Amino acid sequence: MTDQAHMRRAIELAARGRGTTSPNPVVGCVVLDAAGQVVGEGFHVYAGGPHAEVVALRAAGERARGGTAYVTLEPCDHTGRTGPCALALLEAGIARVVVAVSDPNPAAAGGADRLTRHGVAVTTGVLAAEAERGNAEWLTSVRLGRPHVTWKYAATLDGRSAAADGTSQWITSPESRADVHRLRGEADAIIAGIGTVLADDPRLTVRRPPGDGAPADGPGPPAGRTGTDARPPGDGAPAPRPLLRVVVDSDARTPLTARVLDGPAPTLVAVAADADADALASRAEVVRLARRPYGIDLAGLLAELHRRQIVGVLLEGGPTLAGSFLKEGLIDRVVGYLAPALLGEGAAALGPAGAATIAETHRLEFEDVTPTGPDLRLTARPVPLKEL
Amino acid sequence: MTDQAHMRRAIELAARGRGTTSPNPVVGCVVLDAAGQVVGEGFHVYAGGPHAEVVALRAAGERARGGTAYVTLEPCDHTGRTGPCALALLEAGIARVVVAVSDPNPAAAGGADRLTRHGVAVTTGVLAAEAERGNAEWLTSVRLGRPHVTWKYAATLDGRSAAADGTSQWITSPESRADVHRLRGEADAIIAGIGTVLADDPRLTVRRPPGDGAPADGPGPPAGRTGTDARPPGDGAPAPRPLLRVVVDSDARTPLTARVLDGPAPTLVAVAADADADALASRAEVVRLARRPYGIDLAGLLAELHRRQIVGVLLEGGPTLAGSFLKEGLIDRVVGYLAPALLGEGAAALGPAGAATIAETHRLEFEDVTPTGPDLRLTARPVPLKEL
Repeated sequence: MTDQAHMRRAIELAARGRGTTSPNPVVGCVVLDAAGQVVGEGFHVYAGGPHAEVVALRAAGERARGGTAYVTLEPCDHTGRTGPCALALLEAGIARVVVAVSDPNPAAAGGADRLTRHGVAVTTGVLAAEAERGNAEWLTSVRLGRPHVTWKYAATLDGRSAAADGTSQWITSPESRADVHRLRGEADAIIAGIGTVLADDPRLTVRRPPGDGAPADGPGPPAGRTGTDARPPGDGAPAPRPLLRVVVDSDARTPLTARVLDGPAPTLVAVAADADADALASRAEVVRLARRPYGIDLAGLLAELHRRQIVGVLLEGGPTLAGSFLKEGLIDRVVGYLAPALLGEGAAALGPAGAATIAETHRLEFEDVTPTGPDLRLTARPVPLKEL
Repeated sequence: MTDQAHMRRAIELAARGRGTTSPNPVVGCVVLDAAGQVVGEGFHVYAGGPHAEVVALRAAGERARGGTAYVTLEPCDHTGRTGPCALALLEAGIARVVVAVSDPNPAAAGGADRLTRHGVAVTTGVLAAEAERGNAEWLTSVRLGRPHVTWKYAATLDGRSAAADGTSQWITSPESRADVHRLRGEADAIIAGIGTVLADDPRLTVRRPPGDGAPADGPGPPAGRTGTDARPPGDGAPAPRPLLRVVVDSDARTPLTARVLDGPAPTLVAVAADADADALASRAEVVRLARRPYGIDLAGLLAELHRRQIVGVLLEGGPTLAGSFLKEGLIDRVVGYLAPALLGEGAAALGPAGAATIAETHRLEFEDVTPTGPDLRLTARPVPLKEL
C-alpha cells in the first residue's frame, strides 16, 4: 500500500471525530510497524481527550519501533491538556512520519521540526487537499480568526424553497432532512434569521439518532458517532458541547414564546445596538452589534462567536440572511438539498446578494454530489478558494 | 457473459443512432454464434437504411446459424422500406432471440410471435427499463400520439437563468453549452417562445462538431456520430433531416429580421388563430392554433408536429413557455445545466406552472447526474411515470 492509501485511511479515521472534537481539529493516525504492517489506528475524539497519535501508538505498543506514522495534521509540539505528540512519536521509536497538512496554529506548530531534528524522516503534503477539506472548519478558524460558515438550503430544481402560498413542508425527502440533522450535529452553532423564526418557529436542535440515549429534544451526538472503535470504553469523555442557537434579529422581534428560546440548548440573540431587547434578555443571551444597511454587522457577529470558541457554524437561512452573508463574503461552503421537483412560483432559496449582473455572479465549485433519498445533496465552495 | 451484458452492449449500439434514425426508433443488435461468441453487431442508422438486425446478421454471416440475437426492440414483422427482420432472423438460422422492449406499433408488432411459431426461443423484457429510456422519444410518439418533449434549462444553484439586469451570457460553461448542441442534434425540432426570440435573437441551429464537414450554420449531425463502425461505407445514406425551428408566438411578433428566420433550416411560427401573421407568412411557415389563457393550444401544436413526423422536441424556453408546457403535463424529460454559482436576484428558470402550494409541486425523479465541465447536468422525468 502506498502513502496515499494509508493517509486516506487516516483521513477516514479523522472524520469520525466530526462533531465532537471542536474547538480542536479532527485528526486521524495510522501506525505501521517496521515491516509495513498496520499495527495501530486512532483518531481524536474530544477536546481534552488523547490525540490521534497517542491512541494509535497505544494500540501499536512496541511494534511501533522503527515504523511509520501517518497523521492528517502535523503532530503538535506543545503541552496543552495532553503532552506534545511529537515527543510521543519519538519515544515510541517511530522512524518516519507522513503528514497531510502542516499545523497553522503558531502555539502548536513545530512538531515536524522537532521530529526532523531527532532523525525522523518527515514527509508533508500527502493528500493535503483532501485532509484540508476534512478540517475546513478548524483551519478557517485558525487562519481567518472567525468560524467557518456552511450555508444550507433546500429547494426545487427551479430554486424555490417555498410555494406561492408560503407552504414549504416538505420540499425535500426524510432522508435529506435527516442529513440536515447530521450537519447540525457537526456544527458548534446554528444561525437563523428572524424571518425564519417568525415563519416556522423552529427549535434548531439536533434530532437524536435512533437508539441513542440522549434526551429527545437535546443536542444529542450526531448519527454515526456512537460505537466508534477508537474511543476507549469508560474514558469519562465529556458530553459534546451543546449546540449554540443564534438568531439574527436586528429589531429584537423574537417572541418570548418562540421554541428557539426553549429547551436545554443555549440561545444567543443578535440585535442591533439600538434595539429594545430588555424583555428578550430575560430569556436568552443578547449580543448587540452595529446596525448595517442589510441588518446587523455579520462579521462582528462571527467575531463574537469566535471569541466563544465557535469553530463551525451552520447557517440555515432564510434567503435574506443568506444573501447578506454571501454579499459579505462570509460563506465558506454551500450545502444544497435539491428535490427533483418544480414549482414555478414561490420564494427563492436565496435573496439579494450584491450580484446584479452576470459578471458579479458568486462563483463556486462543486466539491461533492451525493444522493439523499430521491434528492441530491450538492456541496460547493467559493472560487477562487479563499486563502485559508 | 450474461443476457444483461449482451443487451447492455446492444443498448450502447442503439444509442449511436440517436439523432439520425427519426422518425424511426433507435435499435441495436448483438449476434452470438452457437458457442456464445459475439460474431456480429449492428445498429439502425437512418430511416430507410438497414435495420440493426440485418446489419448484425450480415456481419455474422453463416456463423449466426444456431446462435442468439440480442435486440433492443422487438424485431419488426412488416415490410416497409426494408423486409421484416423476423424473417431475416429466421433465414439466418438464429435459435434464440432476446428482446428488451416489445414493439408498441401495431403496424410493426408480431415479430416475436412469428419467431416463436417457427421454433425460435424468445425472451422479452431484458433490461427493458434501460432500453425504454434510450428510445423514450419514439415510444412516446407511438404510445401517446405526440412528440416527446425535453425541457432544457440552464441556471445557477438558486434557480436563476439571468441576472437582475437581464444579462445571461454565460451562466453555464462552454462544456454545458456544447452539450446543449448535442441535445439539439438529437432532436427533430426546437421550440422557443417569442420572449426568448425577442430577448436573445437565437438562430436555434446545431453547431457543427469540430472537424465535421457540415456547413457552419446548418443543422449538422451531432457530435459523435461520424465514424460509426456499423454504418456501411458509401451506403448513400441521406443527410439527417434538418432540425425544425418552432417559435411559439401567439401575437405574431417575430421580427422579419430575426435570425430564427434565416439560414437553411425550416422554421414554423405558431400563432393564435386571430393573429395578424400575413407578413410573417412570407418568411416562415405559419400554423394557427386556438388561443388559450396562457397563450396558444400547446397540445394542438404538438399534434401538428406529430403529423409532420416530429418525434423528439427540445423545448428551450423561456420560463413562461416552459411553465405552460409543464402545467399542461406536456414535459416528458427535464435536462438542467446547473452552474456552481449564486445570483440571489434575476429571472427564475421556470415561470408559473399551476403549482401554488407544496401539494401541487410537479414531482420528478432523477434519471442521471453528470458533470459537464464545472457544471452539473441533471436529467429528471415526471413521476409517477406516465403510462407510455
